Amino acid sequence: MSIGGGAANTTSLLRLINQRAVFTEIFRLGKASRPELAQVTGLSKPTISMALADLERARLVRPVGLRTGGTGRAALLYEIRPEAGWVLAADIGRTTVRLALADLVGDVVVRRQEPSAAGSYEGLLEQLVRLAAEVVAEAGLEPGDVTVTVFGTPGIHDKEGGALRLAPGLPGWERPGAVDALAGVTGSPYTVENDVDLAAVGEGAYGLGKEVSHFVLVSIGTGVGMGVVIDGGLYRGARGAAGEISYLPVSVPGGEDGPGFDRRRGEFESVASADGIVAAAARLGMTAATAEEVVDAARRGDAVARMVLAAEAGHVARALAGVIAVLDPELVVLGGGIGAQAGDLLAGPVAERLETLVALTPPRIEVSTLGPDAVILGALAVGLSTARDLVFERAVSAGPA
Amino acid sequence: MSIGGGAANTTSLLRLINQRAVFTEIFRLGKASRPELAQVTGLSKPTISMALADLERARLVRPVGLRTGGTGRAALLYEIRPEAGWVLAADIGRTTVRLALADLVGDVVVRRQEPSAAGSYEGLLEQLVRLAAEVVAEAGLEPGDVTVTVFGTPGIHDKEGGALRLAPGLPGWERPGAVDALAGVTGSPYTVENDVDLAAVGEGAYGLGKEVSHFVLVSIGTGVGMGVVIDGGLYRGARGAAGEISYLPVSVPGGEDGPGFDRRRGEFESVASADGIVAAAARLGMTAATAEEVVDAARRGDAVARMVLAAEAGHVARALAGVIAVLDPELVVLGGGIGAQAGDLLAGPVAERLETLVALTPPRIEVSTLGPDAVILGALAVGLSTARDLVFERAVSAGPA
Repeated sequence: MSIGGGAANTTSLLRLINQRAVFTEIFRLGKASRPELAQVTGLSKPTISMALADLERARLVRPVGLRTGGTGRAALLYEIRPEAGWVLAADIGRTTVRLALADLVGDVVVRRQEPSAAGSYEGLLEQLVRLAAEVVAEAGLEPGDVTVTVFGTPGIHDKEGGALRLAPGLPGWERPGAVDALAGVTGSPYTVENDVDLAAVGEGAYGLGKEVSHFVLVSIGTGVGMGVVIDGGLYRGARGAAGEISYLPVSVPGGEDGPGFDRRRGEFESVASADGIVAAAARLGMTAATAEEVVDAARRGDAVARMVLAAEAGHVARALAGVIAVLDPELVVLGGGIGAQAGDLLAGPVAERLETLVALTPPRIEVSTLGPDAVILGALAVGLSTARDLVFERAVSAGPA
Repeated sequence: MSIGGGAANTTSLLRLINQRAVFTEIFRLGKASRPELAQVTGLSKPTISMALADLERARLVRPVGLRTGGTGRAALLYEIRPEAGWVLAADIGRTTVRLALADLVGDVVVRRQEPSAAGSYEGLLEQLVRLAAEVVAEAGLEPGDVTVTVFGTPGIHDKEGGALRLAPGLPGWERPGAVDALAGVTGSPYTVENDVDLAAVGEGAYGLGKEVSHFVLVSIGTGVGMGVVIDGGLYRGARGAAGEISYLPVSVPGGEDGPGFDRRRGEFESVASADGIVAAAARLGMTAATAEEVVDAARRGDAVARMVLAAEAGHVARALAGVIAVLDPELVVLGGGIGAQAGDLLAGPVAERLETLVALTPPRIEVSTLGPDAVILGALAVGLSTARDLVFERAVSAGPA
């Protein structure tokens, strides 16, 4: 069962385990020499050499040059062969659909972005099929070359029912079996994850959450949501609904009978999402088509827009007071469309307001630097980890060359 | 390095590892036969026999009788020797101090309970020293016989500063080094844990939280607090402040200027704790010295008391809406003095109110059946696990007999 060649008689489970250990470490290190691999795996140099030869024959790794410098001989470096696997990431939103195709070392080779056809279930599905085909063709690949596809969507993926829950922005996807149609987009194995959870994974892999054990990513945009990272891993809750903070009580002025409260969307989302900002501006006599306009006006010093953003900071602070009381995170990252666009205007007032709302010193409040790519980056991180396992297993099951 | 005898030359690290595996399994199973131990550890029967002989010589386990029934020969059963270790658990509250001393199988041999001398730091410390000495003497033990002591207190134990934070009910314990004086209570190794966290551990070990991966224990009494269990383990947060829900926003009528709001205690605790209930009753013209009186009056059908409890249910529901939005637990257990006394009156209205406050079906809301012993039971669970390791390590370091 050794991968890609060698005399079948001499192969063994141990040899396979060594191959996987070496492959995993090269994946983690990026580029690695035989002595480095011997050190991190604890395996002997002859064993490393044999595993590298096997992995190279299986076209999973390749030599990439010499590491020079230092005193000894220059060491030959190995890296993952980028074309050994491909990950397609899709961020399916109510307003925008984003796709990115990356090779097995995570380099994005093609991107695509379009206004979302979310208004119709069939329309959105057709859009995804078309975009995926275009992206794959543009990369010079065949449809079967995609190793794994990761879809980020709003709401919760109910795997048993094959449906999305709590995703009113994607009408039709709440029907039983609706999500299962995503299998046809590329034909590859696929996973469906909550978009804000993916953004939190992206933040942990590439953003402010690196090296932080306990943090939350609070996303404010057309909707609101939160990804919870505990001990470095995503915490999903008993039913995948952890971080569904749209329903977090934030003391809307006037309570549930007050202006701006929409029972179907939950208290925090009613007032703090993009629609809530536009509605709050309208109640103060300001006509704005989008939350962006309100934020831009506030930057220009418009008094009404500033009042609206001050109220927004108050809502976010009260929501975070609840999050902090429950989770005691080390860091709060603000993300999502409004989080990214207005985060610098909100972070200060939110932190100040929190001083009187929480028991201890508030945690750090910072604005994500990943911008609109956060979900795609998280999807790629999830997909790369799955793809690494899949390409190895396929090489193994292909047997000796 | 084998424990308690055998020829020193024939002992080895492997033999010690086998002893520990057998000891751990007997601890877990309560009573176990050689065949059972061979099955769960994967060790051979001769190896099991040798480990059992070593453990018996070290006075850590003992034979306890025969398992009869079934078809084969009756099997000799072994159990942990109860007197091989002792755990002292102390629940240090603002109103009451409870102590319990248990043997190494968890059987409580002496209990003691007194009104708390919490008004004075020195008074409380003296009370703890006196009570511990009395409990140890009543059990016929010497002070040095206690293997480990576990203290449950309100607030957060700041280990670096040796102080309690967020524990206004225990004045003086916020001073640097104040907590370190607990070392003198029994002289044994000791740990200090948040009392509500211990109640959650107790709930997981002996109560409604058995077999539940994700649950919270919400304690309502003289204060409010929450223990968070994730993947079967206590989640403490970045600074030990996870579950400090006294500051959870619950939309107090009139906001922070409204009646009953005490900024120093946080929004939820101001209105929902025992004092909050008494104050709410007073505002409606009812004179009650304690929250218990209000609950009793509600049980008798008193209209004002019922209004107070309906408001209490509303506060608890709004707090839980926040908890559920963040954590998506499988189960919410109501505990603490008021939780235990009035939980049956609150659980129904809370669950009903939650239907309109959360995104998905609310999780189960149940009332703890552990009563005032919850903290002590959690402390014993924590202490037994530590004591098991300590007695084994001491037997090992004592060397061959």
